[in-house]
Amino acid sequence: MVDLDTIKELVVESTARIVLVVMDGLGGLPLEPGGKTELETARTPNLDSLAARSSLGLATLVAPGLTPGSGPGHLALFGYDPLQWLIGRGVLEALGIGFDLHDSDVAARGNFCTIDAHGLVTDRRAGRIATELNVELCQQLRTIQVGGAQVLVEPVKEHRFVVVFRGEGLSDQLSETDPQQRGVPPKPVEALAPAAEPTARLVNDFIAQARHILAAHYPANMVLLRGFAKHPNLPTFEQLYGLHPACIAAYPMYKGLAKLAGMDILPVPARDEAHGPTIAEEFAALAANWQRYNFFFLHVKQTDSAGEDGDFARKVRVIEEVDRHIPELLALSPDVVVVTGDHSTPALLKVHSWHPVPYLLYSKYCRPDGIAEFGERACARGSLGNFAAAHGLRLMLANALRLTKYGA
Amino acid sequence: MVDLDTIKELVVESTARIVLVVMDGLGGLPLEPGGKTELETARTPNLDSLAARSSLGLATLVAPGLTPGSGPGHLALFGYDPLQWLIGRGVLEALGIGFDLHDSDVAARGNFCTIDAHGLVTDRRAGRIATELNVELCQQLRTIQVGGAQVLVEPVKEHRFVVVFRGEGLSDQLSETDPQQRGVPPKPVEALAPAAEPTARLVNDFIAQARHILAAHYPANMVLLRGFAKHPNLPTFEQLYGLHPACIAAYPMYKGLAKLAGMDILPVPARDEAHGPTIAEEFAALAANWQRYNFFFLHVKQTDSAGEDGDFARKVRVIEEVDRHIPELLALSPDVVVVTGDHSTPALLKVHSWHPVPYLLYSKYCRPDGIAEFGERACARGSLGNFAAAHGLRLMLANALRLTKYGA
Repeated sequence: MVDLDTIKELVVESTARIVLVVMDGLGGLPLEPGGKTELETARTPNLDSLAARSSLGLATLVAPGLTPGSGPGHLALFGYDPLQWLIGRGVLEALGIGFDLHDSDVAARGNFCTIDAHGLVTDRRAGRIATELNVELCQQLRTIQVGGAQVLVEPVKEHRFVVVFRGEGLSDQLSETDPQQRGVPPKPVEALAPAAEPTARLVNDFIAQARHILAAHYPANMVLLRGFAKHPNLPTFEQLYGLHPACIAAYPMYKGLAKLAGMDILPVPARDEAHGPTIAEEFAALAANWQRYNFFFLHVKQTDSAGEDGDFARKVRVIEEVDRHIPELLALSPDVVVVTGDHSTPALLKVHSWHPVPYLLYSKYCRPDGIAEFGERACARGSLGNFAAAHGLRLMLANALRLTKYGA
Repeated sequence: MVDLDTIKELVVESTARIVLVVMDGLGGLPLEPGGKTELETARTPNLDSLAARSSLGLATLVAPGLTPGSGPGHLALFGYDPLQWLIGRGVLEALGIGFDLHDSDVAARGNFCTIDAHGLVTDRRAGRIATELNVELCQQLRTIQVGGAQVLVEPVKEHRFVVVFRGEGLSDQLSETDPQQRGVPPKPVEALAPAAEPTARLVNDFIAQARHILAAHYPANMVLLRGFAKHPNLPTFEQLYGLHPACIAAYPMYKGLAKLAGMDILPVPARDEAHGPTIAEEFAALAANWQRYNFFFLHVKQTDSAGEDGDFARKVRVIEEVDRHIPELLALSPDVVVVTGDHSTPALLKVHSWHPVPYLLYSKYCRPDGIAEFGERACARGSLGNFAAAHGLRLMLANALRLTKYGA
């Protein structure tokens, strides 16, 4: 992988606009031998027509055989080597709710959970309590004081919240408290390095006080903490490439990932606020902000959700819905368009998988493969080959004429 | 290449069984322009039918343009980066005959050779003396005593033997004595690092005594030593992946390679003991041990031998013979099957070559390319692309659902 400093040296000015459309978990599998994948099944006349004018390939997000989490998957699409840049879940959750994380903060993902009279976990998600109750309980947790750090607690959704410990010299080298099963007590936080011992003590103090405060709030009568992490301080798109990037996404985690790369998070007006913006509303936000940015990351979550539900037909329908918005996207005259996924989520498996994802790269200056189909097997025949996804961002920059030559 | 520790962290339990079939030197070349390779020429209805349900690719064992020895070729197939893990020929030969090599031992491959009255080599293999004579001569060499190390000598086959120097502080940084041509004397062993000087002296002492003992045993009146090496201490399949692996092979070197990865070497009953087990007997051993292991490495040597003899037709026949056993293999309901080679040995070249090898990966969860042919050019169109062979093992683990996701 070429290092980011090398790329940075090559960057030149360009007025070109780049759009990266990520259908989460896009890659799929046939349900039965000889069958088609979700994407191959979907009727996608617009993507097929765009494919004919594009370079195609299969992108490997992390490494062959490795199943990417959403963090590594997106970092790779954003051009960061996901084996070099690791981002803890706590940081993702914090950024996803718009939390202003400081460099020295330690963030963790919290769950309200249920324990019985013996202190054993009976429900790791406290029956997925209502978000309103979560908000109330977080207010009570904010009263906790521990020595050596300020405690910041923010609700996320249902049973999930974020806790941030703010102070000097804190470490994120901490073990998780979620036992990942019922019938056992939460684990204590342990320091994974000697320097993390003071932090472990203060986090355990927080947990003890939280337990006391929550005792009367069955089923949300305890907390589990996971994914202790600090801000990874990624170099941003602005710093690296002089890009002015924006993110259009419905879900906190993807907004958080985009923020790490220095993207502005665009508001996406939604008719149904409770359910968040639709795909149509996301594409409308793209058009509404077109003049203000030169890089857009548009994230569609619904493909992944359908895959995780094992709902092949629904995943097909979501892909077809995205396809219907492609003309609207092309009407903006983008200079570079990439359509891909951050990993595969085959309905057959109901989880993220290791399979490489279809990757379509369109620009006036791409070398079109002339393959008039966007699908896994069509992309396998494409000229990009089976390539490391992190290279994709350099291809976007190159196609935007934003990279000068390397060496004399 | 993702490091092994990273992979190890992702391993989860699985009941899936994996079979890796290696046809040694499988890759080939057409004999004339416009022609087909050995594999493309062979009638392989069973492999073709399996290919239709598999992901295909071309595996590069070491690096593009580099011709793999059997050691690096197999290490790559076993998932070890062959540029990181180097294994000397002496160690391979020692492990291949079941020698219990200690961590501090230095092993070398020995040849009995013929020298004339002036001490010049006239036959580097002593006319390929009978193995029985080799056994007798090794018994005599065992009487040699040198200062600073115990000397262990074991016959291999024909003119080949293994010598192991056992003691503390020995070094394998030693030059070889085989001059690789006739009409010149054997070279003395030289230390390739200052710390190896005592070892060089004692090995030269061994050679001088061997020459004295063998003087009356023309044509086997001298020895040549090559491939000084210590045990590389590879982390095993059990340690890394929790696999319980077994090897089915006819030749010592491949058993030795499998042992390095921690595989059990299965007995393969052979009707013709002198010639060793047939391909049919190897597949029978697979069936006989099916319940006892969850990873099988089945090695077929005859493809390579035919290639090295420049016998295109015989190599074709061997591939067809393997093809006839594929239904027997599939009848065991393996979860993951890989069929590939450890390098190419085109009959046209009569030696190992640098050409990438055809690679077929079948599992219920692979994404089939729908290419109903197993051959070099068919594999070039496959979705695995031209990939580093060491990634293949991660793909096998992924397809066995033995790797959890990387990152949140």
